[in-house]
Amino acid sequence: MTRRKAAILGSSGMIGQRFAHMLEGHPYFDVVAYCASDRSEGRRLRDLWKLADVELPAGLSDAEIDATNPEALAREGVEVVFSGLPSEVAGKVEDECADGGMAVFSNASAHRMEPDTPIMIPEINHGHLRAVERQRERRAKGGFVVTNANCSITGLALGIKPLVDSYGLTDFSVATYQALSGAGYPGVPSIDVLGNVIPHIQSEEEKMNAEGKKILGRYEEDRFVDSPVNILASCARVGVRDGHLEAVFVRRADVPDAEGVASTLERFSSRPQELSLPSAPVQPIIVRREQNRPQPALDCNAGSPERAKGMAVTIGRIRVDGEDLRFFLLVHNTIRGGAGGSVLNAELAHREGLT
Amino acid sequence: MTRRKAAILGSSGMIGQRFAHMLEGHPYFDVVAYCASDRSEGRRLRDLWKLADVELPAGLSDAEIDATNPEALAREGVEVVFSGLPSEVAGKVEDECADGGMAVFSNASAHRMEPDTPIMIPEINHGHLRAVERQRERRAKGGFVVTNANCSITGLALGIKPLVDSYGLTDFSVATYQALSGAGYPGVPSIDVLGNVIPHIQSEEEKMNAEGKKILGRYEEDRFVDSPVNILASCARVGVRDGHLEAVFVRRADVPDAEGVASTLERFSSRPQELSLPSAPVQPIIVRREQNRPQPALDCNAGSPERAKGMAVTIGRIRVDGEDLRFFLLVHNTIRGGAGGSVLNAELAHREGLT
Amino acid sequence: MTRRKAAILGSSGMIGQRFAHMLEGHPYFDVVAYCASDRSEGRRLRDLWKLADVELPAGLSDAEIDATNPEALAREGVEVVFSGLPSEVAGKVEDECADGGMAVFSNASAHRMEPDTPIMIPEINHGHLRAVERQRERRAKGGFVVTNANCSITGLALGIKPLVDSYGLTDFSVATYQALSGAGYPGVPSIDVLGNVIPHIQSEEEKMNAEGKKILGRYEEDRFVDSPVNILASCARVGVRDGHLEAVFVRRADVPDAEGVASTLERFSSRPQELSLPSAPVQPIIVRREQNRPQPALDCNAGSPERAKGMAVTIGRIRVDGEDLRFFLLVHNTIRGGAGGSVLNAELAHREGLT
Amino acid sequence: MTRRKAAILGSSGMIGQRFAHMLEGHPYFDVVAYCASDRSEGRRLRDLWKLADVELPAGLSDAEIDATNPEALAREGVEVVFSGLPSEVAGKVEDECADGGMAVFSNASAHRMEPDTPIMIPEINHGHLRAVERQRERRAKGGFVVTNANCSITGLALGIKPLVDSYGLTDFSVATYQALSGAGYPGVPSIDVLGNVIPHIQSEEEKMNAEGKKILGRYEEDRFVDSPVNILASCARVGVRDGHLEAVFVRRADVPDAEGVASTLERFSSRPQELSLPSAPVQPIIVRREQNRPQPALDCNAGSPERAKGMAVTIGRIRVDGEDLRFFLLVHNTIRGGAGGSVLNAELAHREGLT
Repeated sequence: MTRRKAAILGSSGMIGQRFAHMLEGHPYFDVVAYCASDRSEGRRLRDLWKLADVELPAGLSDAEIDATNPEALAREGVEVVFSGLPSEVAGKVEDECADGGMAVFSNASAHRMEPDTPIMIPEINHGHLRAVERQRERRAKGGFVVTNANCSITGLALGIKPLVDSYGLTDFSVATYQALSGAGYPGVPSIDVLGNVIPHIQSEEEKMNAEGKKILGRYEEDRFVDSPVNILASCARVGVRDGHLEAVFVRRADVPDAEGVASTLERFSSRPQELSLPSAPVQPIIVRREQNRPQPALDCNAGSPERAKGMAVTIGRIRVDGEDLRFFLLVHNTIRGGAGGSVLNAELAHREGLT
Repeated sequence: MTRRKAAILGSSGMIGQRFAHMLEGHPYFDVVAYCASDRSEGRRLRDLWKLADVELPAGLSDAEIDATNPEALAREGVEVVFSGLPSEVAGKVEDECADGGMAVFSNASAHRMEPDTPIMIPEINHGHLRAVERQRERRAKGGFVVTNANCSITGLALGIKPLVDSYGLTDFSVATYQALSGAGYPGVPSIDVLGNVIPHIQSEEEKMNAEGKKILGRYEEDRFVDSPVNILASCARVGVRDGHLEAVFVRRADVPDAEGVASTLERFSSRPQELSLPSAPVQPIIVRREQNRPQPALDCNAGSPERAKGMAVTIGRIRVDGEDLRFFLLVHNTIRGGAGGSVLNAELAHREGLT
Repeated sequence: MTRRKAAILGSSGMIGQRFAHMLEGHPYFDVVAYCASDRSEGRRLRDLWKLADVELPAGLSDAEIDATNPEALAREGVEVVFSGLPSEVAGKVEDECADGGMAVFSNASAHRMEPDTPIMIPEINHGHLRAVERQRERRAKGGFVVTNANCSITGLALGIKPLVDSYGLTDFSVATYQALSGAGYPGVPSIDVLGNVIPHIQSEEEKMNAEGKKILGRYEEDRFVDSPVNILASCARVGVRDGHLEAVFVRRADVPDAEGVASTLERFSSRPQELSLPSAPVQPIIVRREQNRPQPALDCNAGSPERAKGMAVTIGRIRVDGEDLRFFLLVHNTIRGGAGGSVLNAELAHREGLT
Repeated sequence: MTRRKAAILGSSGMIGQRFAHMLEGHPYFDVVAYCASDRSEGRRLRDLWKLADVELPAGLSDAEIDATNPEALAREGVEVVFSGLPSEVAGKVEDECADGGMAVFSNASAHRMEPDTPIMIPEINHGHLRAVERQRERRAKGGFVVTNANCSITGLALGIKPLVDSYGLTDFSVATYQALSGAGYPGVPSIDVLGNVIPHIQSEEEKMNAEGKKILGRYEEDRFVDSPVNILASCARVGVRDGHLEAVFVRRADVPDAEGVASTLERFSSRPQELSLPSAPVQPIIVRREQNRPQPALDCNAGSPERAKGMAVTIGRIRVDGEDLRFFLLVHNTIRGGAGGSVLNAELAHREGLT
């Protein structure tokens, strides 16, 4: 099968570079353009590399940054676009790409709440991909935008999906311990966060609830119907490089004992696993039974096979006291909660014949 | 008024040294002995000083460590003992002091759950001091033990007391971001917590609920009656020196809007304020209205006057959505949640004629 | 004696706020204007406060930020200006103030290398103040600029001054461990420095040598003559809030044993001490004999009396092996190596009749 | 060729686990026993795993810890022992293994300064392996001990070897920025090092000079002859997980310009490269020309092929001013400066027919 020509937008940033890393040697997509702002045009990707945990793939050592030009991408025959653009510029550029006939898989929030654009987490809502049909009607050349979710809700939505389905839980309270990489670059000034916790992340709590309702909701009769799930979040930034940890509480929950909950989580599997998508983790939710896990520094790269590292969510310290359920959840914020989310979305779309 | 002769137990540790710092020049107590384990005997306090934020008081530059010997303390006429002992040794030594006629104010958990020993936070439960009467009956010479609470519940209990009283709230979910100093010395290995969060603190979650029920409960007919308050906690350690931050959630709460809640918190005042106890903060609960406070590095020393620095709890980001209430709370874990708690207890006991 | 009316430039930044903190209640200077860029005009100082270790002085709780307008300052009768401006804007604004008749004490590097502007560290080169006479000749109304030195060389120059004088040492190699506050705000992105060391600080190594030669040199016949001292520096940024630590090496040094060197350092005293300037530390160089000091978190505020906290340099681990001398040195980079340096300069100038 | 049966001592510690990781699937050695203290006996390696950057190899998921029993190892036919024991217990146990006929490759300092035991860094002193002949004479059954060097001197010695050889340099001053993993586990208390630098590491500076002289010296006429190289070190601990950074100074050096020095370093290659030893980096010294490298978080795993990750030393910021040479150097302290050093030693010994 021929690989689709692909481009990465926002290649000088951390999400763009995760895309570059995850798409190297990808069986479905062949990245032919690494785009960023004019300021970076002509520079080499290796000189802008910001990821500390993974090296620039050897094959990209001479890759150069292009300016961001949707028309030029169309001319070069690019069919698939991965967008790691900042939200404030993403809206316009992604529209131009989609209107130019390209399939855009975006990490930006710009299009997430649109009525014909899915926020997709394939294990949860692969059926939402149908919204693309309606979206295409308004796009001139059959292109479309599919977004991944905010990093914090991605982990939470994935982790609670089996609980919502099995036990009918709806009211989740969650406190987050969010990593620095979630703020992009330059992000949080070091003097603010050194030996400190910052109990605020702009719009994050609102996004978690609004996106959560859409993600966990249904798509029927050509529209999205919100889930009754209600997420009450308090978000804080901590001095961690990668990996958002979340403390989740459900009161008055009709759940089995901790081991029963663990079993429900571990057994969860969905369409990406059925299709053996390249970046799909064999087990999307990993349960740790040690008393002090998951930890961001130890567990954020959970997931197998190799292409799915960082794509599994890890849950630990499941406690059921009477009717009250508590656990900790960890998600890699720039892999599953960022670039990896969109890569998985693109893989699903590809297999569904949309790219 | 003559100052009471006092001794500090555990002077080589961080709580013991907070006692030393807070009791320097105290109007009620005159520290005549700095005790620690035999290993430290004869060393100078200045050579063991562990507090980074405050200096050894000038007057203590030559102070020497004594061995821990309750009988010797009694012989020297010590009437008041401040105990920063580790819980595993505190039980026995504190009993010896109390049985020897001394008033013991302890930070250790050893005696907290005993039926005639109060866990006192004077703004909340000054009336619990009456339990001392019953305790004295079983102590040979009129001594007694009064404990302060676990550091995390101290902040939470103080912060929720006005909400429990005004709005009848009972079910609190709380996620903590706890400072390293709470683990004592040497405490958490640096390699474990560098750029990481550890989602477990031994017995902390259980203590928060059990102690919270006793603290917020009543003392009547010579016994403690638990409060119906129920605290569902998930505790984690973060790379912060001092100051436990807590994300608090109350679902289905019949509360006014955020400003109404703020006002209830700010107006809270109690017996220590009426008595103008030296370490009592003029305003026990400080509300911050900025969108990113409280922060451990900026706010953990809240409280005035000077002697009450670190004795106020700071609450911020109060949000009321429908019936759901959220806020962040910060307490200095080794001052209000440690040594300072016991100093305030001793001040109250002194003014109530018990020392 | 009447206090001189003073203004602070750069009040929204960390150096400007150190000025505000150090000048509160100052016996010589009365700050009547807190200036910053137009962007901050009209905001309250308390809402921009960036210092974590000291609180906004109570008297400044309502202080408002003014725009930076040298003419307006002149009209208000401001005689003394403390500049914490970024170097790229400092040159012009400081010139306008000096040309308008004001005495400018600046932390910026803009004017440091000018032939009639002293880089002053009063314990080292109080005589350089005479250069002001020549500078005044070219300024219309008798104003002038005096600068403090780069933060890293300030500590080093002060620490080596007695060694240069007593033993004729000239060749110093030094590796620095520099604090985040030295980079201003927002400064270093947290993701870059978390669990990391960055072995480069723009122009710092060159400044250390060039400024060091001028500071330790002579002022004679109306010009500065460089010292033969040669400083070979390697500068690195570490995850520390305040306090630059420096590892200093001198090879082939004709020095006494470690205790002899310590004694030479401890005995050092100079003109600020003779004059008992308010911010002059009684002992400018403190020697620690423990095997693991000085440490930034424990020792950066060294110095007494209260107004001189952070004004002393601390030296430790002095080792003499054969002819080779090594030690560690610590300086508070935003106090002695920043705002405090200029405050001391202004105090000297005031006492010398220049303000 | 049959793989030699091997055992790892100290398997519960960080060095022992680096051995386990590096020896998985090794072409020369087949690890049949993971030994640790009695306390860990019977526990699974996966439950004691301490490395955050690499996962337990899949093949070891059920590996169990054995007690440390040299006789039992001999009975099982173990021929090669890798020792990650703490130095205080290493001496005796390693002697028992060597006396029992095993080839011991040790990271401990216990045997380093013995007159017939080499401290080997194969790129520098592969000829020192001959000392083993003499050592075998006193060992009953032909066993021997070969040690790797202290982590800090390992990096430095490797980095300066070409400079010593090419330019006759002898006097090196060096300040270190050492990672937490160098202190073992539990190592440095977090409260001591959070936002701090500790300017002291027990015996490290002395070891660097003494070991450096032996490593860089000659072995002739059956004895070690010290090199005239003199290393004046000041060692400090910083909040970094892995990777010792070192600022190196050479005064009055007769060297070419920076690019000439870089070229000398880059071209360096030695016996391990000739033999293509499995863990030998193709290029032992990597030179970075960016202005802010090497950085521990980005560069500590330098080296290729895959088995040699962390085995190359990275040098950057080479500056030559007049006769003065400065640069920064980075070494992975638990790979090249720890377990990897001994693995390379064992590989060389194997190829030289000694195992």
